[in-house]
Amino acid sequence: MKNIYGIHPTAIIGDGVSIGENVTLGANSIVYDNVFLGDHTIVGPNCILGEPTADLYSGCASYRNPVLIIGPHSLIRSGTTIYAGSELGEYFECGHRVTIREKARIGRNVRIGTLSDIQGRCEIGNYVRFHSNVHIGQKSVIKDYVWIFPYVVLTNDPHPPSETLIGVTVEEFAVVATMSVILPGVVVGRDSLVGASSLVRKNVEPETIVAGSPAKVVASIHDVKSKADGSNVYPWRETFDRGMPWQGIGYEQWRAMHNNRQG
Amino acid sequence: MKNIYGIHPTAIIGDGVSIGENVTLGANSIVYDNVFLGDHTIVGPNCILGEPTADLYSGCASYRNPVLIIGPHSLIRSGTTIYAGSELGEYFECGHRVTIREKARIGRNVRIGTLSDIQGRCEIGNYVRFHSNVHIGQKSVIKDYVWIFPYVVLTNDPHPPSETLIGVTVEEFAVVATMSVILPGVVVGRDSLVGASSLVRKNVEPETIVAGSPAKVVASIHDVKSKADGSNVYPWRETFDRGMPWQGIGYEQWRAMHNNRQG
Amino acid sequence: MKNIYGIHPTAIIGDGVSIGENVTLGANSIVYDNVFLGDHTIVGPNCILGEPTADLYSGCASYRNPVLIIGPHSLIRSGTTIYAGSELGEYFECGHRVTIREKARIGRNVRIGTLSDIQGRCEIGNYVRFHSNVHIGQKSVIKDYVWIFPYVVLTNDPHPPSETLIGVTVEEFAVVATMSVILPGVVVGRDSLVGASSLVRKNVEPETIVAGSPAKVVASIHDVKSKADGSNVYPWRETFDRGMPWQGIGYEQWRAMHNNRQG
Repeated sequence: MKNIYGIHPTAIIGDGVSIGENVTLGANSIVYDNVFLGDHTIVGPNCILGEPTADLYSGCASYRNPVLIIGPHSLIRSGTTIYAGSELGEYFECGHRVTIREKARIGRNVRIGTLSDIQGRCEIGNYVRFHSNVHIGQKSVIKDYVWIFPYVVLTNDPHPPSETLIGVTVEEFAVVATMSVILPGVVVGRDSLVGASSLVRKNVEPETIVAGSPAKVVASIHDVKSKADGSNVYPWRETFDRGMPWQGIGYEQWRAMHNNRQG
Repeated sequence: MKNIYGIHPTAIIGDGVSIGENVTLGANSIVYDNVFLGDHTIVGPNCILGEPTADLYSGCASYRNPVLIIGPHSLIRSGTTIYAGSELGEYFECGHRVTIREKARIGRNVRIGTLSDIQGRCEIGNYVRFHSNVHIGQKSVIKDYVWIFPYVVLTNDPHPPSETLIGVTVEEFAVVATMSVILPGVVVGRDSLVGASSLVRKNVEPETIVAGSPAKVVASIHDVKSKADGSNVYPWRETFDRGMPWQGIGYEQWRAMHNNRQG
Repeated sequence: MKNIYGIHPTAIIGDGVSIGENVTLGANSIVYDNVFLGDHTIVGPNCILGEPTADLYSGCASYRNPVLIIGPHSLIRSGTTIYAGSELGEYFECGHRVTIREKARIGRNVRIGTLSDIQGRCEIGNYVRFHSNVHIGQKSVIKDYVWIFPYVVLTNDPHPPSETLIGVTVEEFAVVATMSVILPGVVVGRDSLVGASSLVRKNVEPETIVAGSPAKVVASIHDVKSKADGSNVYPWRETFDRGMPWQGIGYEQWRAMHNNRQG
């Protein structure tokens, strides 16, 4: 296909923008001041990078757009808006019309689905997966290898409306299923699973399944068996590898190698 | 109003695109390769038709955009993205910023509301109605005359994350109300009604109302009476006809005529 | 930053459009016929103002775009679509990709979050706050100082699908938390609080907290104490003032002044 790659003539580029090698900027995309785009990154049509923060409009005459860094080898699909003042690691990938606000710190190899709304002032680890239409409140902390499914909301205000924001923490390898709400300050433990349509008011212990509204403990993740062959399904890192660093070799072997490299 | 109809000069059109008679392409719309646009179809501003699939980015040098067919007399409102490799029947209509991914097979006279997210690899029948912000997972099968209301999610992964996708089936004339989640593999029966905010884990029998989290049977659809005059409300095809093929003549008479024509 | 303010050369402006002093129209924005833009209003890129109603497409040859009025000092962020035939008061502010349909009457100092979907034919008071992704059905009536949080849906059809629309009413100072659904005709009382993930089927009394699916009374708002110092949290107007007319002076003093001015 022609006319897909390269800087489209309709793209608008501000001052102090750094564009790496082999970058694509789609039609009608806008890059505001002080954006750094890593090599080989593809930005689809109608995207806005470096969207000014609210400070621009609050009468701050000396406003200077904070720096936005987008890592190399990223793929940002059409209609996405990423604010100034965030940092995204390499191999970032997202769907259409995603919003990422200021002061989001996002690791490498993260994927965020269509229409997701990252409210900024949050930390997102490596190899995290958000499906479509996930809402991440400010002050959230999401560790590596977390999966969050559609229409999940991570809240932060214990007495809305208030000036107190207490973020949710989601630990490594945890999974939050569709349409669940996590209340402020809750810790979703490592390797745990939150069932669909749950309202989570209390911390979720590691390796535990909770479900319901309000959510209660229903099982250990080790109790879930595959209908096909009766084998264990969780922890999912032992049964799933697509897009993960252990793809093709299995988690245990990768972990062993990884530990050796670090040792 | 001027400047609404016709091919806008800012529209971008790829190779192998077939544009029927009397077609409108709004400002800043993009039509990628191998899209067929039926006669009298209106595409609003900022739409993307024939969005390339992920194969384009996976290093497949021989990538050729799959064919996208959009039927005649369709109305695609602004900001909508439809992937290559899908097929939409005549008189398709959608709201703003809808996403339809690859390998969706959509019948005729279907309407899809603003911000809905059709994940592709699914089948949608004729005269189906999705309100705003409906999420249809891959492998879903939706029969004719189904209504799905805002923020409903049809899921597909029984053990997220896994490589097993088991779609939901929604049978003819079924209604799924706001904010409900249907779990993988569930069959929502003909003429049934799923109440708002339900979590549906088991099949729903025909002509049955289920509600709750988890959803339980609460009544037969024949138990629902109009507050105005005490008459039956369901099956809805006997009390509602706007936009349906039986509009103005009633379902029974239309059905009789239809059967005669086929006989 | 340059290139942020003023009428961008790529903006498209219809007939009968009135643009006040010091207005910004971002890149690729479209203003259809008969839109009035108040002084000092900023419209971001990719916005559509005065979107034609469905009457345009229903074969009405004499279609004339209804008037859209947007008050002065408004800030409309990128990708937002506002239909013809609505009226928005001064100091309106919204996030990205908001949709507001026809016949919405919106007061002054209202803020609407990213991806919210206002279905039109509704009334929204002054100083109302909608967070991201709020869905307001037709016939809704929302009074002054109401807060609605992400993924809340205000429904209107008691027997979907039907031609009967009965709107929800939300009274002054009420708060509806994340992911709640309010059923048709329900009145959410003054100073009340609807907990997260609730399904509200019955009226909520003033100063009452309801929660659950279906929602039940759980407490009086006066029972909620701050974890920090044990003081009352609600009514929130006594503990929160950001962006409110009593900012800096407190609600009671402001109210006293306000009553004096009116008296």
